[in-house]
Amino acid sequence: MPISQHDIASPNVETAPVPVDICADRLKDLKTAIDTQDVDTAREVLRELHYADKAELLNLLDEEGRQELTAMIADSFDKDILPELSTEAALDVVETLGPDKSAEVLTQLETDDAIHVMGELSPETQQDILNVAPAVLREELEEGLSYPEQSAGRLMNKRLICVPEFWSVGQTLGYLRERTDLPENFYVIYITDPKFHPVGRVTLAKVTQSQLDVSIASIMEEDSYAVQTTTDETDVAFQFWKYGLVETPVVNAQGRLVGTITVDDVVDVIHREDEKDLLQAGGVMSQDIQLGVPETLKQRFPWLFINLLTAVLASFVIGLFEHTIDQLVVLAVLMPIIVSMGSNAGTQSVTVTIRALATRQLKPSSYLAAIRKEVVVGLFNGLGFAVIMGVCAYVIYHDARLSIVFALATIITLGIVGLFGALIPLILHRLKVDPAVSSTVFMTTVSDVFGFLIFLGLATLVMM
Amino acid sequence: MPISQHDIASPNVETAPVPVDICADRLKDLKTAIDTQDVDTAREVLRELHYADKAELLNLLDEEGRQELTAMIADSFDKDILPELSTEAALDVVETLGPDKSAEVLTQLETDDAIHVMGELSPETQQDILNVAPAVLREELEEGLSYPEQSAGRLMNKRLICVPEFWSVGQTLGYLRERTDLPENFYVIYITDPKFHPVGRVTLAKVTQSQLDVSIASIMEEDSYAVQTTTDETDVAFQFWKYGLVETPVVNAQGRLVGTITVDDVVDVIHREDEKDLLQAGGVMSQDIQLGVPETLKQRFPWLFINLLTAVLASFVIGLFEHTIDQLVVLAVLMPIIVSMGSNAGTQSVTVTIRALATRQLKPSSYLAAIRKEVVVGLFNGLGFAVIMGVCAYVIYHDARLSIVFALATIITLGIVGLFGALIPLILHRLKVDPAVSSTVFMTTVSDVFGFLIFLGLATLVMM
Repeated sequence: MPISQHDIASPNVETAPVPVDICADRLKDLKTAIDTQDVDTAREVLRELHYADKAELLNLLDEEGRQELTAMIADSFDKDILPELSTEAALDVVETLGPDKSAEVLTQLETDDAIHVMGELSPETQQDILNVAPAVLREELEEGLSYPEQSAGRLMNKRLICVPEFWSVGQTLGYLRERTDLPENFYVIYITDPKFHPVGRVTLAKVTQSQLDVSIASIMEEDSYAVQTTTDETDVAFQFWKYGLVETPVVNAQGRLVGTITVDDVVDVIHREDEKDLLQAGGVMSQDIQLGVPETLKQRFPWLFINLLTAVLASFVIGLFEHTIDQLVVLAVLMPIIVSMGSNAGTQSVTVTIRALATRQLKPSSYLAAIRKEVVVGLFNGLGFAVIMGVCAYVIYHDARLSIVFALATIITLGIVGLFGALIPLILHRLKVDPAVSSTVFMTTVSDVFGFLIFLGLATLVMM
Repeated sequence: MPISQHDIASPNVETAPVPVDICADRLKDLKTAIDTQDVDTAREVLRELHYADKAELLNLLDEEGRQELTAMIADSFDKDILPELSTEAALDVVETLGPDKSAEVLTQLETDDAIHVMGELSPETQQDILNVAPAVLREELEEGLSYPEQSAGRLMNKRLICVPEFWSVGQTLGYLRERTDLPENFYVIYITDPKFHPVGRVTLAKVTQSQLDVSIASIMEEDSYAVQTTTDETDVAFQFWKYGLVETPVVNAQGRLVGTITVDDVVDVIHREDEKDLLQAGGVMSQDIQLGVPETLKQRFPWLFINLLTAVLASFVIGLFEHTIDQLVVLAVLMPIIVSMGSNAGTQSVTVTIRALATRQLKPSSYLAAIRKEVVVGLFNGLGFAVIMGVCAYVIYHDARLSIVFALATIITLGIVGLFGALIPLILHRLKVDPAVSSTVFMTTVSDVFGFLIFLGLATLVMM
């Protein structure tokens, strides 16, 4: 596990700040050093930093700055920076380093990190690196890249510790001391049978706390957390979270132990997922805050454009009732209330359904019950608000028919958005589309179109 | 780290399902067993389950079911279930177990887990347990509860491994083998000076890979990741994620090592945070999918009611321009488009700002720049859409003044929501209110009110 000299909080000072401001403070110095091609200063700025902070600085620079800085520090490039870079930064750095140097750096990384970096590159750049990579690395990378994106195979480290069942604790500790090709850090020792099928595991802590003559088999726990190389990374993350795992074995289709996934990789997955969900729901990207205005516009405009189409559709529905509104302008005053209630109630249903899918609380057998519940909740909420809103409308406008239309529209709209609020994520999930990303657009369309249609339609029927 | 017999995926089968459906499948059997007071069947259902799954089953039962089941299995209650329970379930279970049995179970837990459980209980129940708890436990719990909620002090485990600088690897390993009061799992050994200030750390993996006569000081890394007992848990989680930590020391105000936080606790924090953010943004709760209709209504109604007030405010704004709309009903057709664009652009700004605050990319020194950027992006986006929407409106309605009003309103609205989209989360953050929870309400109010006000106001000025 990475530990550096980086001065975050000297333990004997009164306050221990978290490492918040390091990068921004040094970015300016670094930019000056790059502009003046001052290699010594650049090195000085980076010298005491943790590799995650170095990577953040590279992420914060623009393309040109990244390329210049990489060229300046290429001969002593810190390998651990690579896996921490954003996709764009990784591309710039690898292209500047060139295939030979990149392959050299990748060789020093653990398998999962090297594969992660390769996954960020274009197929051409990948091929350039594979062409010059040493045979062992090439094989590892090609195997890693052969697993589906976001699968356990991409996350796993191929270097792991496994010992046979008949060994003692003393033998195991002796083996650890002698071997020099072990991973940098590990928490678990796997016990495998002669065919390399995992039969159990024991934590390193337990090994060190046991007497030397005790057999490994007697302190191991039967292993039941193995994931397949093809398991989706979000399923892996869920398993780590639910069972509080620190490390889990990965087996291939034949059940042979082929790798191990550690919790630090999973923390990255969780963060990536949440970031993706949150930001894609608004059509913005993780790096947004660091982008310039033109890049930001390029990111955000398309999402707003899709929304414009939705809004135009809603507007078209209103247009159908232009005549009704012309006769009864109060409808224009009240209609946004119905749509707003529908949109919020729909968001509630969508949010609950997405979350229940993500936390595995919702399975195919309970889809129907979930949909029914959302409709019923929608209708009851609708009933409650129909009374409140109907009475208020009557007090203000003294028009019984208007109040009844307003109240009825509320009930029906909330029922319909409840139905679609459950249906949309479930259908997207079935179609293997991430519901967190695209449910919002569909839900907005439904609540806008139906909200206006029901209220104005009812008004036309009853009041015209 | 918890490992059980739980049969998730036998490693030598072709497919390794993740543990998705276990609980729902067994819930029915369990309910029947509870209804018939069939203790043997209840035990049978629970027997081979991981404690996280047992806890999930308890979470899924209603209050009565939880109490009955707890009473049925009280004499062999699995201690590890407690920290995994939801707040309501923990309360029901602890009340059923009674103070004496609860204190007995808490004694067997690690400090952080025991404190977490206590934190879920009411002050009265806490006091009942403290009154009967053994002195050591009482002291630990009282100390733990004295730290602010969601601080590192609440997360830390007080049992940790630390050795003096002058020890050798052999001495250290001997010490681990002899001690019996060590934590169940640990990944790091801390090295402290005589005053108990941490001076360094070494991973257990590195200790086991070093020769026995090597001194601990020569393989340790200087420790610079210490957090204070008062550090906020989200700051701790950020540090774990950014630096890929597995364990971090916790020091008190005097810089003395008082505890250690492990990554599994942090994974829980990350999950809690994300769940909270996602769900509170929609006014719904994590357990929603499992609630009955009446409880669900109780959860969701208040959020919709707040939204109703917002919508009424927007409706009031439209009402001010009733006369204008009466003369020009096309305004009612077009106005939802402006508001919808404003609402979506505002959401983008809010999302980006909240995320930048959460990932520590936005610091007070760059607040002004962030606000300026959102306004500029809003105005440019507005300009783009003004052209598109203005031209379309002209093509449809052949009314130059209407098209100009429509276009101008778009630009101004998107500029204003950009301003508030950055301002609202920043102000809430300054006021120490979680911006992820309450920004949405304010943003909706702003985009609704200003959207209608600007479009209808401009129309009244220019066209009436």
